[in-house]
Amino acid sequence: VNSEGKVKMKLSLPDVQYDLRPGIVEFRAGHPDLALLPATGVLQATQVVLEREASQALSYGAEQGPGCLIKQLCAWLEHVEGERPPLTQVMITGGASQALDMICMLLTEPGDIALVQSPTYHLALRVMRDHHLELLPVPSDDEGLRVDALEETLTLLQRRGRQPCMLYLVSTFNNPSGITLTLERRNALAELAQHYNLIVVEDDVYYKLWYDTPPPPSIYSLTPSGSAIRLGSFSKILAPGLRLGWMLATPKIVQRCMKSGVLDSGGGLGHFTAHVVAAFIELGLLDQQIKTLRATYRERRNVLVGALKDHLPKECHWLTPQGGFFVWLRLAQGMDSTAFLQTAEDAGVSYIPGARFFADGGGDNYCRLNFTMLSLDEIEQGAHRLGKVLYNYL
Amino acid sequence: VNSEGKVKMKLSLPDVQYDLRPGIVEFRAGHPDLALLPATGVLQATQVVLEREASQALSYGAEQGPGCLIKQLCAWLEHVEGERPPLTQVMITGGASQALDMICMLLTEPGDIALVQSPTYHLALRVMRDHHLELLPVPSDDEGLRVDALEETLTLLQRRGRQPCMLYLVSTFNNPSGITLTLERRNALAELAQHYNLIVVEDDVYYKLWYDTPPPPSIYSLTPSGSAIRLGSFSKILAPGLRLGWMLATPKIVQRCMKSGVLDSGGGLGHFTAHVVAAFIELGLLDQQIKTLRATYRERRNVLVGALKDHLPKECHWLTPQGGFFVWLRLAQGMDSTAFLQTAEDAGVSYIPGARFFADGGGDNYCRLNFTMLSLDEIEQGAHRLGKVLYNYL
Repeated sequence: VNSEGKVKMKLSLPDVQYDLRPGIVEFRAGHPDLALLPATGVLQATQVVLEREASQALSYGAEQGPGCLIKQLCAWLEHVEGERPPLTQVMITGGASQALDMICMLLTEPGDIALVQSPTYHLALRVMRDHHLELLPVPSDDEGLRVDALEETLTLLQRRGRQPCMLYLVSTFNNPSGITLTLERRNALAELAQHYNLIVVEDDVYYKLWYDTPPPPSIYSLTPSGSAIRLGSFSKILAPGLRLGWMLATPKIVQRCMKSGVLDSGGGLGHFTAHVVAAFIELGLLDQQIKTLRATYRERRNVLVGALKDHLPKECHWLTPQGGFFVWLRLAQGMDSTAFLQTAEDAGVSYIPGARFFADGGGDNYCRLNFTMLSLDEIEQGAHRLGKVLYNYL
Repeated sequence: VNSEGKVKMKLSLPDVQYDLRPGIVEFRAGHPDLALLPATGVLQATQVVLEREASQALSYGAEQGPGCLIKQLCAWLEHVEGERPPLTQVMITGGASQALDMICMLLTEPGDIALVQSPTYHLALRVMRDHHLELLPVPSDDEGLRVDALEETLTLLQRRGRQPCMLYLVSTFNNPSGITLTLERRNALAELAQHYNLIVVEDDVYYKLWYDTPPPPSIYSLTPSGSAIRLGSFSKILAPGLRLGWMLATPKIVQRCMKSGVLDSGGGLGHFTAHVVAAFIELGLLDQQIKTLRATYRERRNVLVGALKDHLPKECHWLTPQGGFFVWLRLAQGMDSTAFLQTAEDAGVSYIPGARFFADGGGDNYCRLNFTMLSLDEIEQGAHRLGKVLYNYL
């Protein structure tokens, strides 16, 4: 400890999950911009918490999450989405992946069939596989999940006497495709879910990060009967290190999760950080942060889409994402993005190969490109490098 | 927000897990003293983190836990226990209950047999039941788990072709009995575990809270072959709201846990608070905190044991716990502590009935009494009230 109370330390074990390799433009990541993480605001919120309510914030927390955050969150959701969820239908989680893990653990059995959007968030597939679920993909197109294909699948399963334990999808600004399920399809899906008694797990972590026009209402809000579970997260809009999110679901599902052994023993998830986030919202800092993120990410998206147009062969195709973190790049038919990843990295640019986002294979000629973690110059440079690699493969 | 930047708020949903009822001396709890939670130190540590390493602390964390905490923890364990665990055998967890939940999830199958000390921590039983394990109790006596009975059980199971997935026990200052497994039995258990290839899950959250003499070496440190998984926690020695602990295990088990889908997706558990705890240790505050806790809790233990002697009928029996949180009170044979709990609460004193700590029933004439959360006056008062109730039942 030096005279200013600061401590210098050398790290040999990794501290964080990202691994930024010098000389490579990392379109791989799915992280927020490190420079935009609101350190000052988090410190300010922590000060409020520890000066005002330390003994509560440092104790074992209520299993549903601390009342202070549930109330702040509900008020904030009403303010940004026009609808206030009832207090009995909210639960604080350790982020969307913890929530999905908890849902798998408490509401499914090994061997159950889980329907998954295709393509979808590759690491959600890993969570479901850890619980030994059988994953059955449902295709999507430019309007999102194909609800007609879902209906066919449900009919077929019903004939075989199988009830899927859930449908998992990223409904808004899908990871990886960036596509948002249209309102018409959301309504059709809500109806179908009710008819087939299907639990829809709506992973909705990008909802607030729209860059052009706000997305349609959530599937959750369109299924008042309670077929949908909606997962929110503070990872994309505040800071992933806080490991905090929320779940909207029927009181019955919330109660089942609250009454798990692990929460009975340890109390609510991320209780101290939940207090910090409650104070962060209360101080008006969340709205401010989202405003900054939207402006910054919008510009990066624009630059990426422009640069792809400038540098990529005409055989490549992409849609401009209206929000979220990713551009989903389709290469010429027959190209294999897994096969030439090494070549691309040697040329100083990286991405995640499309095949990872399909539960059953396919997607070989796609690449997922992230634009939130890179500067405008890096984005331009990365697209240029990627273009050169692709021209060589034509 | 008022002029000082503080905010007043009314809470209707519960914020914390404890529920202190006015007029009742709550021997029920298993929580640290609220007044001793180190608010100032946590704030100081948070300041260091957010001024020095904000972008790391707020990012997705390394799956094993942040290197900064792993290093601080290993150095601290060496300092307090004389042995430094290798970096590959440590993992940061969301507390001992999260760790147990993760172990059940990744290392067991529904229907597996888990051996459990009897009596043992009742909420650990709930976690294991959530994973559909079959719980088989192994009795204990005044020297802790009966290793001879364990051997009989293992032999019997082996004859039936069944391999138990684990043995769960609180080896030191057991919850609820306060008893510490003797060194002789630890050695015998280590040998047995190796012979039968049995994973011993050693829940060791009270290890640092000794009031007379330090406990013997952990089972983990006596089984270099790697049969034991040792769970530590910052809940009892720092603050439960931080939801943070650690696990010591073989590199293979650490790797399996690190590679789970949920950590791949969300990064390390409690990453931000892990940074805060690393700074808390680094600033020398943890040793100081434990010193305070030991002095305070030792006095409360002494007062409780003295008050029980003064106020309870001679048919009652207890051992003075050498550390931890609890006195395990045995009433006269045939008394049912579940049956007269209501009467006790009406008389202004509460406890947890012994039956809860046995996987297979029994323990009806026991009560678990916590002494860490109460003032000396309350302890005296509570023992007095309990005595009156018990005399009425004789």
